[in-house]
Amino acid sequence: MRVMRLGQPGEERPVVRVDDGIVEVGDVVGDIDAAFFAGGGVERLRDVVAERVAAGAVRPLGDERIGAPIARPHQILCVGLNYSDHAAETGQAVPDEPILFSKSPNTLVGPDDDVLIPPGSQKTDWEVELGIVIGRQVTYLADERAATEAIAGYVLSNDVSERAYQLERGGQWLKGKSAPTFNPCGPWLATPDEFDDVEDLGLWLDVNGERRQDGSTATMIFGPATIVHYISQFMTLEPGDLINTGTPPGVGMGLDPQVYLRPGDVMELGGEGLGRQRQRVAATQV
Amino acid sequence: MRVMRLGQPGEERPVVRVDDGIVEVGDVVGDIDAAFFAGGGVERLRDVVAERVAAGAVRPLGDERIGAPIARPHQILCVGLNYSDHAAETGQAVPDEPILFSKSPNTLVGPDDDVLIPPGSQKTDWEVELGIVIGRQVTYLADERAATEAIAGYVLSNDVSERAYQLERGGQWLKGKSAPTFNPCGPWLATPDEFDDVEDLGLWLDVNGERRQDGSTATMIFGPATIVHYISQFMTLEPGDLINTGTPPGVGMGLDPQVYLRPGDVMELGGEGLGRQRQRVAATQV
Repeated sequence: MRVMRLGQPGEERPVVRVDDGIVEVGDVVGDIDAAFFAGGGVERLRDVVAERVAAGAVRPLGDERIGAPIARPHQILCVGLNYSDHAAETGQAVPDEPILFSKSPNTLVGPDDDVLIPPGSQKTDWEVELGIVIGRQVTYLADERAATEAIAGYVLSNDVSERAYQLERGGQWLKGKSAPTFNPCGPWLATPDEFDDVEDLGLWLDVNGERRQDGSTATMIFGPATIVHYISQFMTLEPGDLINTGTPPGVGMGLDPQVYLRPGDVMELGGEGLGRQRQRVAATQV
Repeated sequence: MRVMRLGQPGEERPVVRVDDGIVEVGDVVGDIDAAFFAGGGVERLRDVVAERVAAGAVRPLGDERIGAPIARPHQILCVGLNYSDHAAETGQAVPDEPILFSKSPNTLVGPDDDVLIPPGSQKTDWEVELGIVIGRQVTYLADERAATEAIAGYVLSNDVSERAYQLERGGQWLKGKSAPTFNPCGPWLATPDEFDDVEDLGLWLDVNGERRQDGSTATMIFGPATIVHYISQFMTLEPGDLINTGTPPGVGMGLDPQVYLRPGDVMELGGEGLGRQRQRVAATQV
């Protein structure tokens, strides 16, 4: 099942993507949030959508704004340097265990919303990623099997990063990850049954039509179950939490010479089974 | 004004502390959350409390559980090494600009709730801190005067930290700051008018009756207005967000030999105008 949220920012309603159309489900579930996941919302939606498809209630997607497929989560976590070839391009060692940092939850925006360069920023960069959405509250998970059961689904994420703020301003990465609009997400949440193998998905990103990232989750160092099990040893994950799992090679910082985003640039990105995003890059108006 | 939340976890209701008693206000405001701060809740409470005090509605505090004085925030941010003498005891340089990291928002607990040592942890440590609570949504603030206006009040915070997870597990501090119960907060939120000078407040912390921290916000490197202005250059702060501003010297990691928390220990801490906390330390039951 592929769950989406349509409508203006802050007023999105849930729908389910069915082939090339959608089924409205806003009368059945309020939002795609912690209560939805904790309350068995995914299974309830399956039943509702099956009934409505049988009744012919599929309609075209149209050109309505697409929001992030999940409501603002309790936390957004990110795994750093989780592709061996990306670690190499940044000049850093492959980590022995997942590197973990956070983004401010209010960075979450829709897949086609503008990305705003912070005032004075010179090093705003792109990162196409597979995102994990958590389905239940978990702490100190016993094993990776339990971690797999805690995953509600997967999303496409652009972990936009300001490299000077991330790496040249004291060592903690949070500062470079949290500017407004820095986490385009969607277009949909795909439940795990949508994938034959989530550790073998193509991921790509173009800037102004030029292919910059062209990788696969097959080269991830730590897979989703390992990541969720690992993080749960340090904190409580809650239903609806988002985990960005790291980016394949091809970020602007890794190019020679380095290339960063400028107002007017266009990012297009996608992942197998995860859909596509398109963001216009703009300057922040202060 | 000093705002508190009383009741069992997840069922707290707001009250206002008046001298040695309290005034109930749960019929006037729902919770001490983003909507409360953004909607002028503080000013509304002032009027209500004045009326109720005049009508003789003050009652004793009693022994009801005290919750954190704010609902779970959108984000908890922390400033690292913000006291020159604490930086020295950890063997790290005084930072040129604020070091910023985050704690998971679900670490927030009441001032007298148990603190749980993570399974297998050997280096769980204490940090008494002045916490800033944000009163309005702000991004890219123009100056420190605007930052001052964005501060709703101050709280006492214990920024509990697992030093091995913080410093020996990849370099990003989040892992050592986010275990369940790692942010006792309260007993109250004090509005800025309660303080003659928030940059001259005594802060202390005892473990098992032994004074371990005995400092003052007078030795902070970056004061509250500087911190809020600075953080707003990197992200959007939202009403109800909590910023822990750093700890004075005397943490367990800084002692020779180092001392860490064990089940059965008792932490007591306080700050001028901020109230007192008392936490029993217990092992996590998995």
